[in-house]
Amino acid sequence: MSLLLNSRDVEFILYELLGTEDLVSSDRFSDYDVATFNAVIEAAKTLAEEKFAPFAAKLDANEPTFDGKTVHMISEVQEALDAYVDGGFMGMAADSKYGGMQLPWVVSQAAGAYVAAADVSANAYPFLTHAAINLLAMFASDEQKEKYLLPLVAGRFFGSMCLSEPQAGSSLSDIKVKAEKTDNDFYTISGTKMWISAGEHELSENIVHLVLAKIPGGGSGVHGISLFIVPKYRINDDGSLGERNNVDLAGLNHKMGFRGTTNTVLNFGESGECRGFLVGEEHRGLFYMFYMMNEARIGVGMTATVLGYTGYLHSLQYARDRLQGRSIAQKDASTPQVPIIEHADIKRLLLLQKVAAEGSLALVLYCARILDSLSVCEDKSERGRLELLLDILTPIAKSWPSEFCLEANKHAIQILGGYGYTRDFPLERFYRDNRLNPIHEGTHGIQGLDLLARKVSMRQGAAMDILLSEYEEVIERGHQQSELSEPILAFEQAVGELRDTTHVLVREMQVGKVAESTANAGVYLDAFGHLVIGWIWLKQALVALEASSSAVGEDTEFYEGKINACNFFFRYEIPKAVTQLQLLKQVDTTCLDTKNSWF
Amino acid sequence: MSLLLNSRDVEFILYELLGTEDLVSSDRFSDYDVATFNAVIEAAKTLAEEKFAPFAAKLDANEPTFDGKTVHMISEVQEALDAYVDGGFMGMAADSKYGGMQLPWVVSQAAGAYVAAADVSANAYPFLTHAAINLLAMFASDEQKEKYLLPLVAGRFFGSMCLSEPQAGSSLSDIKVKAEKTDNDFYTISGTKMWISAGEHELSENIVHLVLAKIPGGGSGVHGISLFIVPKYRINDDGSLGERNNVDLAGLNHKMGFRGTTNTVLNFGESGECRGFLVGEEHRGLFYMFYMMNEARIGVGMTATVLGYTGYLHSLQYARDRLQGRSIAQKDASTPQVPIIEHADIKRLLLLQKVAAEGSLALVLYCARILDSLSVCEDKSERGRLELLLDILTPIAKSWPSEFCLEANKHAIQILGGYGYTRDFPLERFYRDNRLNPIHEGTHGIQGLDLLARKVSMRQGAAMDILLSEYEEVIERGHQQSELSEPILAFEQAVGELRDTTHVLVREMQVGKVAESTANAGVYLDAFGHLVIGWIWLKQALVALEASSSAVGEDTEFYEGKINACNFFFRYEIPKAVTQLQLLKQVDTTCLDTKNSWF
Repeated sequence: MSLLLNSRDVEFILYELLGTEDLVSSDRFSDYDVATFNAVIEAAKTLAEEKFAPFAAKLDANEPTFDGKTVHMISEVQEALDAYVDGGFMGMAADSKYGGMQLPWVVSQAAGAYVAAADVSANAYPFLTHAAINLLAMFASDEQKEKYLLPLVAGRFFGSMCLSEPQAGSSLSDIKVKAEKTDNDFYTISGTKMWISAGEHELSENIVHLVLAKIPGGGSGVHGISLFIVPKYRINDDGSLGERNNVDLAGLNHKMGFRGTTNTVLNFGESGECRGFLVGEEHRGLFYMFYMMNEARIGVGMTATVLGYTGYLHSLQYARDRLQGRSIAQKDASTPQVPIIEHADIKRLLLLQKVAAEGSLALVLYCARILDSLSVCEDKSERGRLELLLDILTPIAKSWPSEFCLEANKHAIQILGGYGYTRDFPLERFYRDNRLNPIHEGTHGIQGLDLLARKVSMRQGAAMDILLSEYEEVIERGHQQSELSEPILAFEQAVGELRDTTHVLVREMQVGKVAESTANAGVYLDAFGHLVIGWIWLKQALVALEASSSAVGEDTEFYEGKINACNFFFRYEIPKAVTQLQLLKQVDTTCLDTKNSWF
Repeated sequence: MSLLLNSRDVEFILYELLGTEDLVSSDRFSDYDVATFNAVIEAAKTLAEEKFAPFAAKLDANEPTFDGKTVHMISEVQEALDAYVDGGFMGMAADSKYGGMQLPWVVSQAAGAYVAAADVSANAYPFLTHAAINLLAMFASDEQKEKYLLPLVAGRFFGSMCLSEPQAGSSLSDIKVKAEKTDNDFYTISGTKMWISAGEHELSENIVHLVLAKIPGGGSGVHGISLFIVPKYRINDDGSLGERNNVDLAGLNHKMGFRGTTNTVLNFGESGECRGFLVGEEHRGLFYMFYMMNEARIGVGMTATVLGYTGYLHSLQYARDRLQGRSIAQKDASTPQVPIIEHADIKRLLLLQKVAAEGSLALVLYCARILDSLSVCEDKSERGRLELLLDILTPIAKSWPSEFCLEANKHAIQILGGYGYTRDFPLERFYRDNRLNPIHEGTHGIQGLDLLARKVSMRQGAAMDILLSEYEEVIERGHQQSELSEPILAFEQAVGELRDTTHVLVREMQVGKVAESTANAGVYLDAFGHLVIGWIWLKQALVALEASSSAVGEDTEFYEGKINACNFFFRYEIPKAVTQLQLLKQVDTTCLDTKNSWF
């Protein structure tokens, strides 16, 4: 088995769970069939294993450096990304009119998952480029598409997202980078951005920075923010590269993990005129950026997921090979040692990883699949339903894998013991890499507020109602399967708690007690996430149960493993969420009321 | 405030909680008074801040190297350890007859905590030396004490513990290192040890390895294990250093954290005769080693604790200084940003760290204080009670801080956001360092089995009964304090669950269902640990409540902070343990029954 992802599981999720094959009946994807989808995924897997995985440890140990003029990194990154571009992967999901392959997003995500699992930090360069492609495809003018989007899809240019500044990380309303209108077709950009991943490198001919900036007089807070294309090199009218656009690297940040991704402080316009090209309308920047951001958040969830997943597979292989100890009932030390997978506590650590990794993968691909449905659905009310469902799932798809696949990596290290703590094995790297995911693209705390203060209550709770009706549907199907009666019952009770608690919190908000209601938004996020993952596991178990009756050979074990993992999750994890929901229902203000001087 | 530990809290725990001052009325500590205790601790704090903390980041970034002959490390380590030795700290707790200061163990632990907080990886050298001192003081012959113990106490020699081997980490019964009797006063040692911290360096004149080995014919399993003193350099009869004893460094392990501590693979007797000197009797090695190991386990708990603690203080300082965002009710973005400590979710992340760090510190010092009581107590039945109490608390003192102070470090990084993820701040280093603690000196899983399969049921549950009567005492005191009625009630209910669950699990064990009963020992360990920490927090809250009536100024806030943290722990954390106990009571075998092929 590959140590990146379990291909059988990827197929299970794509087709048996998500019905991805249905997409080929739409005009948009009519050139494709399942065999082609699988061929693309298989090609990505080969690329990941042959070109990315071999240098992941080396890149981690040799992070990019800056000599004051140029960023240097080990040559394998360029080689791997060249192969990625040559394989057409940069344009996987882009429309064919822009030179892309126009694959379903869910297929491109599955393919990209292998590359990310092989080396998340090298994968960050295409990750940000895909995000830029999606944004420009949606909001850029035709001329901008010609100049910037096409070279991005072709992999000649790479992208970056420039939101944060030293004094404004989570609080975007406080950004200071300025965009001043000129008499020409550009604005002049000035100021400093921080934490910009892939903000500088020599891997592509050009870098297309998508920059949030304020046009003076545009009003305070987030309403005054506009979005600009700011290229590293200006583009001449014939499409050739012009001179540097005065985006200067002030320095590289040195991180615990993700060491292969340059993370930069960028100065705009300090060394001369820096030209920015307005995307869409003035003062609408945050709206455009959040379009990209929502996909980026699901992408962060995917990154966290694959780290958890590959860690799981590495520790599983080790647990099967490593001999240590004996059955607890075996007192005779002269008997042979057993593989540690036979110890119950090791199985528990593997199950915790399995439910996190496979559950997260199913969730992020589910979200990707919604995007594909949206791209082919013409029914307005169904579109509305799907958009709201995606809206409410996005903070979970970002945060749950970020938290629980990081925990999974912790368990993977534990299975390897001292070996897991050394740099001879990749587990400690996965753990360091994954620690970033609860921080970037909106911290865990921000996701909690997004969920509770916005998504749950928006449009009179319409998104929440849609999710609850999804839950109801699974409960109804589950009631017809006596083998699932225990997890279904546990789910029903948990959903009841979620309804009650949410009702209480929203009511508090409505009577103006916003601070009290949202004080434990982070706890709500985790509990809510557990139910979403429980739902995804029930959906998987239902499919597995149905398929298992006609399954043969290894498939039988695969399906039983799915059902067993679902049971584990409901016995060991869901009760924790119920406990948290019960706390939340009391609108506890312990944290809110804690004084600074009490620490 | 120091960023290592809160001195006010250390004093609170030592005197107000643990009555350390009472020790001076015993003969053993009659030379001391509280002022002297505090002077030693203050000196350690100064040493930690001036000599250890300044190079911790540098040592992490420049790990020791081996050129095939000698281990090299940055010179600051030698300078700091020289100052440590010159200050008499290596002999802090050793008897004066061996040249030590004969301080109470709890005072030496508090003093050492500052040094560990400043740089855990440099502190590992004295850490292992203290362990060797304790073991030799207890079990070595007079001649061995003269040759090895005195130079250890004087800081001329350092110690190491050699238990694990490549094929035997958790399973000591499978060690292969051999000790063959000779006609002289030594055995010849041969074989390979692995994961030996401080196993080779040039920091001391000599290294005293305490080595577990098997004497051929000594029986299988743990019963055939004996303990040997194996010096790096042989000692001549006049105490001078002789020739190398053929303990060879095969290589250094390269770890995620604890990078300043050499972690070694050692070959014994490969390059020539390696002499080992038997400690005590043949085949009793594991008993001797576990005497040291139990203190070492509490020491690991302390190491985890101080990492959690200093991370907490760093993130607290940042949260007070960093301006970001506004109150959730404040929509006007033109108002100034607020310190992030004003956000409820940041307070929650700080409270989680506070309960973990301060609770753990109180627990490990409580255990150290028991050791001191044992060193002065002459009443046999009270000694028996204290020994059993320490026995049952040891797996918790090791495991709970290892798990939850690691989590605390995770939260500390989160508070700093992107900054916390960079190597410009020490939080990521604390997190990497702390990941070792659930692994070494008995993994988390091993601690769970030790607790459930041994400590809880030993002597017909005598240790458990003693702990439960401690719980009852706190409940009784708490009933007289209406301000604590809520946490006391929660504790009573949780203790009830613990009793019931433990009863069920022990009964299963007694009827031979050992595998079923212990299948979730890891879950039991965490839940049990939560109750121990809850109890420690109630003890602190009771003291704080009593003291607060006459407190003035900052002390008032300090005591209120303690009571608030106790309330937080019972509202947010104890319900999780209750949920786990309810699961355990069902003797769930999901993990045990999971087949290898289901992964």
